[in-house]
Amino acid sequence: MNKEFHLTDILAFEQRFRATFINSLGGFKSLALIGTRSREGNTNLAIFNSLFHIGANPPLFGFIVRPDSVDRHTLNNILETGEFTVNHVREVFYEKAHQTSARYPSDISEFATTQLTEEYKAGYYAPFVKESHIQIGAHFTQKIDIQENGTIMIIAKIKSVSIPEDCIQTDGFVDLEKAGTITVSGIDSYHRTEKIARLAYAKPFIKTSELNSL
Amino acid sequence: MNKEFHLTDILAFEQRFRATFINSLGGFKSLALIGTRSREGNTNLAIFNSLFHIGANPPLFGFIVRPDSVDRHTLNNILETGEFTVNHVREVFYEKAHQTSARYPSDISEFATTQLTEEYKAGYYAPFVKESHIQIGAHFTQKIDIQENGTIMIIAKIKSVSIPEDCIQTDGFVDLEKAGTITVSGIDSYHRTEKIARLAYAKPFIKTSELNSL
Repeated sequence: MNKEFHLTDILAFEQRFRATFINSLGGFKSLALIGTRSREGNTNLAIFNSLFHIGANPPLFGFIVRPDSVDRHTLNNILETGEFTVNHVREVFYEKAHQTSARYPSDISEFATTQLTEEYKAGYYAPFVKESHIQIGAHFTQKIDIQENGTIMIIAKIKSVSIPEDCIQTDGFVDLEKAGTITVSGIDSYHRTEKIARLAYAKPFIKTSELNSL
Repeated sequence: MNKEFHLTDILAFEQRFRATFINSLGGFKSLALIGTRSREGNTNLAIFNSLFHIGANPPLFGFIVRPDSVDRHTLNNILETGEFTVNHVREVFYEKAHQTSARYPSDISEFATTQLTEEYKAGYYAPFVKESHIQIGAHFTQKIDIQENGTIMIIAKIKSVSIPEDCIQTDGFVDLEKAGTITVSGIDSYHRTEKIARLAYAKPFIKTSELNSL
């Protein structure tokens, strides 16, 4: 039996209940650790679940930064240095990934407290997460202030990607499930996935068909 | 063995290969059908995988519209009427959901071609998808043009939510897995999920713990 909630009901929810409820509604979400390093050299690692694809040429994506202290370290470092890393989360370290959401002071690195490993690559000032199978080096492009509630959108360009070679199919598709990437719902519920199928490009009036393995 | 791709490699990819590759990198994504209705009364249904949470108070989310003809019907209807519906996709109708991405002319409704059922609710001009267990009524708030590549971001406010009552936990968390919501990677790979755990709110220097069932 479905229950209907109207805006007045939602606004009357207790604050944490509402946050948990509304955060669930967007469906399953991308899950990534964003690695940054301040100009003074302090590293920071923070979990994000709001990455979204913007375009492939140039390769662009965005994510939302909330106006609170945890995310501020990430935001400040990105604005200071113009650079950050995006690291997919695997099941073997999802608890460490979650722990990065705790409000550590800015001089304490989440790499140290979670024992995730900083990996440095030529041409990058910001650290990657060595335990991640899919690592993206990104360059800050634009900051958009969302007037309605003071959140900030960061738009970034992909500079480099590191992926297990056997996870890349012949048409360019990256098999995230094979790479061990997991997903999240709400802000704290972690899920592995099980593939149903890939479907072929849809054409009007032609029945949907499965893509064979590539 | 990981393979590294740099921006120059990515820009040199064949166009479709690049689109498929870059679309995969954001991780697993939300999957929803957006229902709209033009001022003349034509309904439209389109699949989107770029929904992201912006805030809970007021309840806001966003999604990306690509500057091509399929998405244009959705965009035009939203801008004309200020209103749309978001409907979660379940495994039993994911092929129909995918089929809505075909480029039908604007006077042909994807509801008719896919045989998904229009559901009308008091106070809403736009149709919901009757087969969806989680339905959100949304009101257009803001349009942001992304200069870098001509895509458009729509920001919207949640006006109402319909959810199976037994999928709402006592702390407000909505159990999407129980509601049958599935996820997508890339633009065409559909996945069901299997819960690993919900984790408690993270605090500095305290070991991450599981949340008990609520």
